[in-house]
Amino acid sequence: MNVEIIAIADEVLKGMVVNTNSTNISASLAKIGLRVSRHTVLPDEYEDLKKGIQEALSRCDIVITTGGLGPTLDDITRAVAADIFSSEFTLNQDVYQDLIDRFGTALTSLQDQATVPTKAKILRNKVGTAPGFFFEDKGKCLILMPGVPVEMTPMLENEAIPLLKEKIFDKDRLFVEKVFFSLLSENKLDPSLRELNQKFNGIDIGIYPGYGVLTVVLRGVDPSILSKAKQDLINTFPSNVYESRSGKIEEALFDLLIEEGSTLSFAESCTGGLLAHKMTLLPGASDFFLGSLVTYSNELKKDVLHVPPEVIDSFGAVSADTVKEMLKGLFAVTHSDYGIAVSGIAGPSGGSIEKPVGTIWAAIGRRGHDPDVFSMHLKGVRETIILMTVNRLIALLYRKIKFGCPASDI
Amino acid sequence: MNVEIIAIADEVLKGMVVNTNSTNISASLAKIGLRVSRHTVLPDEYEDLKKGIQEALSRCDIVITTGGLGPTLDDITRAVAADIFSSEFTLNQDVYQDLIDRFGTALTSLQDQATVPTKAKILRNKVGTAPGFFFEDKGKCLILMPGVPVEMTPMLENEAIPLLKEKIFDKDRLFVEKVFFSLLSENKLDPSLRELNQKFNGIDIGIYPGYGVLTVVLRGVDPSILSKAKQDLINTFPSNVYESRSGKIEEALFDLLIEEGSTLSFAESCTGGLLAHKMTLLPGASDFFLGSLVTYSNELKKDVLHVPPEVIDSFGAVSADTVKEMLKGLFAVTHSDYGIAVSGIAGPSGGSIEKPVGTIWAAIGRRGHDPDVFSMHLKGVRETIILMTVNRLIALLYRKIKFGCPASDI
Repeated sequence: MNVEIIAIADEVLKGMVVNTNSTNISASLAKIGLRVSRHTVLPDEYEDLKKGIQEALSRCDIVITTGGLGPTLDDITRAVAADIFSSEFTLNQDVYQDLIDRFGTALTSLQDQATVPTKAKILRNKVGTAPGFFFEDKGKCLILMPGVPVEMTPMLENEAIPLLKEKIFDKDRLFVEKVFFSLLSENKLDPSLRELNQKFNGIDIGIYPGYGVLTVVLRGVDPSILSKAKQDLINTFPSNVYESRSGKIEEALFDLLIEEGSTLSFAESCTGGLLAHKMTLLPGASDFFLGSLVTYSNELKKDVLHVPPEVIDSFGAVSADTVKEMLKGLFAVTHSDYGIAVSGIAGPSGGSIEKPVGTIWAAIGRRGHDPDVFSMHLKGVRETIILMTVNRLIALLYRKIKFGCPASDI
Repeated sequence: MNVEIIAIADEVLKGMVVNTNSTNISASLAKIGLRVSRHTVLPDEYEDLKKGIQEALSRCDIVITTGGLGPTLDDITRAVAADIFSSEFTLNQDVYQDLIDRFGTALTSLQDQATVPTKAKILRNKVGTAPGFFFEDKGKCLILMPGVPVEMTPMLENEAIPLLKEKIFDKDRLFVEKVFFSLLSENKLDPSLRELNQKFNGIDIGIYPGYGVLTVVLRGVDPSILSKAKQDLINTFPSNVYESRSGKIEEALFDLLIEEGSTLSFAESCTGGLLAHKMTLLPGASDFFLGSLVTYSNELKKDVLHVPPEVIDSFGAVSADTVKEMLKGLFAVTHSDYGIAVSGIAGPSGGSIEKPVGTIWAAIGRRGHDPDVFSMHLKGVRETIILMTVNRLIALLYRKIKFGCPASDI
C-alpha cells in the first residue's frame, strides 16, 4: 500500500516555515509498515488543490493532507475534499457539542467548524477547533488533518493511525519494535545494525537520530524473530538504552525519579531554561521537579547560587570550578536530591581560542555526594548546541541513576 | 513566473529528515520576487523522477531540484535531466581541475563528478564535489543542486540566484510585505482582511496564526499599492502590531530592550522555563536578559522569591497576591528593569471549579512601579496553554513598553 502526503501550506511555499508535518507523518506510517512515495506542498487555491489531490489519489491508495481546515477565507481543504467525493455538508451535533464543551458558545467559528461533509468519518481534534476527516471510496482513502503540529500529531496517532491499521491486510502487516539509545553516535551503532541485518533476515531496520538520542525501529512480519533481534540490539550497548513511553529522554528520567521518590532541580546558564522546560512539559512534573535557577548573568550566579566572585574572576563563568559552585549553591537553595549545573558557550559569539563556541561545562550529582564535573565540546549552531546539551545532560543523569555510570563527555 | 521545487530525498519520505532545503530555497526566491507554487519530494527512482520533473516543467517556468547528484548508485538526477533535455555527457576540464585543486587526484569520484551534461551550464560547488547544473530550453529552466544543505545554500545564493535574476521580467516580479500581530484573534482580524481584499485589487493576502500571534503576508506586483495596503492593515489594530525581523514576538521585545538599554528577568511557575528559553534562543540575549527563577515548587517560591508563606496559604499559588509577591521578590533578587511573574494551572490535573485548567495569574511591571496584575483563562492542552501563556506575556510586556498599554487579559 502506497501513501502520498500533501501539505496545504502557503507558509511553506513562501519559505516561512519548514514542513515538519510530512516528515513526522512519514515516520509514524513507517512504524506501522506503510511506505510513503511522495510529499507535495500545495498552495490554498481551489483548482490546484483539487487537481493535486486527484492526481495523488490516482497514483496511490492513501492520501493524507495537512492544513487548510480552519474557519477563515483561505481554508478550503474541506470543501475540495467534499467536492472530490461528491459529499453534502451537515451540522454534526457531536462536533458542535464537543466544541461548546471545550470552548464555550462564544466561539465564533462554532457553526462553521461543526459543519462537516456527510460522507466523511470525523477525526476528533482534542486540542484545537478543526476536526479532521476520513473519506473512503473504491479502495482509496483520503485523510484530512489540521496543519498545526500540536493538533495534527495527536489526531494522527489516536484517530488516523488506528483507522489506517484496519486497512492493512494481514499479509502486509508489519510488527514493530523500538529501542531508544542516548549518548551514542550513529557511526558507532552502525556496524551493529549491519550485523543485525545479516543475522535476522527480512527485518527492516530504521535509525532516527535526534540530538543526543537515537531511535532504532525494527520491523518484520514475525514478532518472535523481531523480539530476538530487539534483545540482541539492546545487548550491544546496554547502558545506552533508555526506557520511555514516547521516546523522549526526559520521560525516562521522569519515570525513574517518580519510582525512586527523588526530587530534582537545575542551575542553568547556557541552556537558558530549556532543561526546565523539557521536564515541565511532562504532566505531573511537579511531583519531583522543584525548579530551575536560570542564572544567565554572572551577577545572578553570585547572588542566587552564591558562586564566589573570585571563582568566576579566576576561572571564568564557563569552567569546572564555576559549575561545581553552581551545583553546590543549587543544593543549598533547593535541597533537591539530584541536581545539574551547566554553563557554556552556545554562540555564535562569545567563543575564544581556549573556549570555542560549543564548550560546555557541567556538574551532575546527588546532594551530599561529590558531583561529576566534566566538559563537552559540541559542534553546531546555537539552537542545536543548546538542544544537544540538554538531551545529553538529562541522559547522563538518567544513566548515572539507572546504571551507576559517572557522567562525563562521550 | 512560477517555480516548483523538487527534493530527491528518500530519507525525507521515510520520515528521517525534515525537508529544510525547499523552504530555504522558497525564502531566497521570495526575496527576488519569485513565487513558488509547489514543493515535491520524490524517491530516487529513474522513471518516477523523470515523470515528476517533466510534469513540473509542464506546469511552470522554473524547476529547481535538490539531491541525487553524488557519485553513488542511487544518485540519478543528473542522468534524468540529461535525458529530458536530450544532452550528451562530456568530461569538463574546469570541473576536473577544480576538483583536483581542492581534493587531490586521489578523489575516487573525480572522473565521475567531472563528467557533465554538455547542454547545461555548470553551477560551482565550492564546498563538496558534486557540481550543480542549469538547463534551459524553450523558455523553461531546470536547475539541479546537491541535497546537502551546506553545499546547496552557497550554490543557490552565489550561482543560481544571479542566473535566475536575469530571467525575471519586471512585470512578473512580486513584492512581499508582512505585518505581525499579537494578542489578536484570527476571527477578529478576518473582517479587516476581507475589506482589504476588496479595497486593494490584485493583492494576495495570507494569514498565519501562531499561539497568541498572527502573521499577515501581503503580496502584489505594485510595491506602492502594497505599501498602502500594509499601512491600512497596521491602522486597523495599531497597538497589536509588533516589529520583528523573523516574526518572533520575543525578538520584538529583544530589540526594544536593547534600544532602551533595559534589563529583564522572569519569575516562572507554570511556564516552567519556556519564557527564559524563548529569550535565550536569540543570539545576544545576555545583553539584556539576566535570568529566570523557575520556582515550580511552593517551597522555592518562598525560599528564592521570598513569597510570604501566609500569602500562598491564604490565596493559593495561583493568585493575584502570589504573583505580585513573586514579582516583588524577583526585583529584589535580580534588580532587573522589567519583570514578569507567572503562576497558573497548565493541566491536565490540578484544576478546580474556582480555578480550572488554563487559569493563569501574572504580574508584569517595571521595578519601582506598581505592576499590572491580571488573570487569563486559556483553553487547550498543557503544551498549548504553556506556549500561549508565554507568547501572550511577552507580547503584553512589549505592548506595555512600546505603547504604554497596561497588561491585562485580552
